[in-house]
Amino acid sequence: MSWNRKHLLDIESLTAAEIFTVLDTARAFKAVGERAIKKVPALRGKTVVNLFIEPSTRTRISFELAAQRLTADIVNFSADASSFKKGETLKDTARNLEALNADFIIIRHSASGAPHFLSRVVNAHIINAGDGAHEHPTQALLDTFTIREKKGKVAGLNVTILGDILYSRVARSNIWALTKLGANVTLCGPATLVPRTFEQMGCRVTHDVEEAIRDADIINLLRIQHERQRQTMFPGIGEYTTLFGLTKARLARTKPDALIMHPGPINRGVEIDSDIADSGRSLILEQVTNGLAVRMAVLFLVNGGQGPHGVTVG
Amino acid sequence: MSWNRKHLLDIESLTAAEIFTVLDTARAFKAVGERAIKKVPALRGKTVVNLFIEPSTRTRISFELAAQRLTADIVNFSADASSFKKGETLKDTARNLEALNADFIIIRHSASGAPHFLSRVVNAHIINAGDGAHEHPTQALLDTFTIREKKGKVAGLNVTILGDILYSRVARSNIWALTKLGANVTLCGPATLVPRTFEQMGCRVTHDVEEAIRDADIINLLRIQHERQRQTMFPGIGEYTTLFGLTKARLARTKPDALIMHPGPINRGVEIDSDIADSGRSLILEQVTNGLAVRMAVLFLVNGGQGPHGVTVG
Amino acid sequence: MSWNRKHLLDIESLTAAEIFTVLDTARAFKAVGERAIKKVPALRGKTVVNLFIEPSTRTRISFELAAQRLTADIVNFSADASSFKKGETLKDTARNLEALNADFIIIRHSASGAPHFLSRVVNAHIINAGDGAHEHPTQALLDTFTIREKKGKVAGLNVTILGDILYSRVARSNIWALTKLGANVTLCGPATLVPRTFEQMGCRVTHDVEEAIRDADIINLLRIQHERQRQTMFPGIGEYTTLFGLTKARLARTKPDALIMHPGPINRGVEIDSDIADSGRSLILEQVTNGLAVRMAVLFLVNGGQGPHGVTVG
Repeated sequence: MSWNRKHLLDIESLTAAEIFTVLDTARAFKAVGERAIKKVPALRGKTVVNLFIEPSTRTRISFELAAQRLTADIVNFSADASSFKKGETLKDTARNLEALNADFIIIRHSASGAPHFLSRVVNAHIINAGDGAHEHPTQALLDTFTIREKKGKVAGLNVTILGDILYSRVARSNIWALTKLGANVTLCGPATLVPRTFEQMGCRVTHDVEEAIRDADIINLLRIQHERQRQTMFPGIGEYTTLFGLTKARLARTKPDALIMHPGPINRGVEIDSDIADSGRSLILEQVTNGLAVRMAVLFLVNGGQGPHGVTVG
Repeated sequence: MSWNRKHLLDIESLTAAEIFTVLDTARAFKAVGERAIKKVPALRGKTVVNLFIEPSTRTRISFELAAQRLTADIVNFSADASSFKKGETLKDTARNLEALNADFIIIRHSASGAPHFLSRVVNAHIINAGDGAHEHPTQALLDTFTIREKKGKVAGLNVTILGDILYSRVARSNIWALTKLGANVTLCGPATLVPRTFEQMGCRVTHDVEEAIRDADIINLLRIQHERQRQTMFPGIGEYTTLFGLTKARLARTKPDALIMHPGPINRGVEIDSDIADSGRSLILEQVTNGLAVRMAVLFLVNGGQGPHGVTVG
Repeated sequence: MSWNRKHLLDIESLTAAEIFTVLDTARAFKAVGERAIKKVPALRGKTVVNLFIEPSTRTRISFELAAQRLTADIVNFSADASSFKKGETLKDTARNLEALNADFIIIRHSASGAPHFLSRVVNAHIINAGDGAHEHPTQALLDTFTIREKKGKVAGLNVTILGDILYSRVARSNIWALTKLGANVTLCGPATLVPRTFEQMGCRVTHDVEEAIRDADIINLLRIQHERQRQTMFPGIGEYTTLFGLTKARLARTKPDALIMHPGPINRGVEIDSDIADSGRSLILEQVTNGLAVRMAVLFLVNGGQGPHGVTVG
């Protein structure tokens, strides 16, 4: 067991042992979610603030439920980044939350580095819930947890991430986690969005979807952002589906036990065929369930919890 | 005692015995609201999601308080129906909530049938908090509870519902509940909004307000939707008040013990004279109080509670 | 110990003894915030509604945390004042909340007197969280708490309030609290915004900032509302900073132990130099911490708590 961190800011700085500690702890918490009474008193009397400067109902709710199941108090602070332009800084907001005795600040922000910045200016535990195009560490942890649960291991697996890699914090955090745990990571998507520079992170880069999926054990599809379709770098939605969408024909050319992941919410018929999303090959909903367990584990560990053996399950 | 349902989707499919079970259970929970400590542990460790795809602060808060008083955890998920057009379906949202171990999904949606649809695609308990122009079952249950509490019975009473019946889910659910319990239901309002086809539901239809209120024991006034006044089917607001508003002059021509109901929020001086709304003849605020008790009862019963004798009041 | 009030509507009607009771009670609750488990069961099973008809994330969160730490249930009801124009009145909304067994209604409203009005139409405890340009009593109580904690007393201190006094409910509540407790209050700012009529409240009025700060023990800077800068009465932001901003040069001409306060959120570089805000002379963040304790004390006392000796700290 290995965890001495006060914050969860990114995957890049974690060791493989630390990642495994989160995954092992999450396994214990996943069992809590299956009980009739889904609560443990681990964070009773602690205060968690969801500081979401970029909107995200689903991630916000996942963290909110994770905090409730640990018996913490939680308040939601949602704001437009624009509302901070009136003279107040992010630092001031965070210090105000600290002055309210917030024990944890879960931050989502459109600016890369916002969580790291907060960790330097306040004493609360900071958890990165997605910062710009930088990292989304709990997403990578829940993805890795899901892979390990299904495949029994991560090392040696062929994992393909397909989509807009360049602007994806999900991709970036997954690349860090997977390579640290010894998986073989392949990135694929339009050439403008999957530059060769990612090879420096230890990945294989290809723009040929058939080659990318052929030997994959896991295919992780990123969400196509409709907002981006007007950008010149991005092909039209229809063209994307034709070139990179996971259709039934393509799925038939993957290994029979290859499994499909997606961080959600999915665009049915765009990056993924609707039937595939609902099939036994899809791990999409298990990812959601595991996300809750992973977020409980992260809150528990940064608070000084002792790993799975120390999980209070009363 | 009679309740074996997993969901509350509508009134139409309930039996009179089931309706009475809800009303009896609500009576026990109403007493909880009058205590110094207004909580019972019946749903401790359960997760309730308020999925409101159509805005409604008042109904949302009523369900939120009902869940809190049963010691459940609750999260609010509010969204525009439009936000679902970006590729995610209602089914996907509900399955995501289920993957988060939501035990109850309380849904309000502008589309009729949305709760029934959810009950087929997820395992959580579904409670209809209003779907399109179809049904609003907890409103009918609280209305029926209020009538029974005040009049000692429902069977044989003359209940007049006055207003825009055609587009009203409140009216539709009330008609089902009242006719099942043996009340004589009269519908009244502008001819364009109260078509004769409602006679097939076992109601009397009249467009003469004097005739509608003369023998009524209960007069249930529907809220006039200002948004609708531009529609060709609807007279002007002033004209509506003249033709169908409950004025003091009209109230004087009702039975002396006729009581006035309204689902709220009221438009003072439009469908109801302001003084009448505040008078002893008005049950409007008692309806609100009873709504909380009825919603506690519904959450309790769909969870497998055993009726009022099984209410845990610790 | 002196407290028999059901509501906290303003500072104007409080006695000095009552103010001291709040401050003493808050001292006990401040200690709760420093514990590992920051909760006391004083309001278990009570329902608190945050009725915010004017937006304020920070004050709303402070009250929300205060209620949670007292183990109350809390729901947020936020609305535009405009949404009340559709026919529903504030009175109706409040009576609906009362019908939902709300024990406390915390109201922020753009109309002066809204809390007093509510206290006459419902039975719930009403707490004023800011009403128009009238009062913001918990802000004055937390400011007074902070002054007393740092200086050991309030009586005899020279307190200067600097800024837009005319439209400031913070200023008005502070003037009442400070004069009742025997402080010498000086008001300063642009002549259009600090009229001589405030002398009738027992204050000294000056438009000379040097004179205002020279002998001050406490300098309380009000937030400059950017929205107001287009008004003819208000100088430009730059001009305001030049004429009235607390710069390092000006701070050097104050007493060495003069302390700086601000209700937040601050405009760095406008009403206050950024370095001063972060310096040991600034009490800004302590005010935030004390606000939580003061709000816990207010909720506790209006509920009939017996002052600090009665604080249940289990």
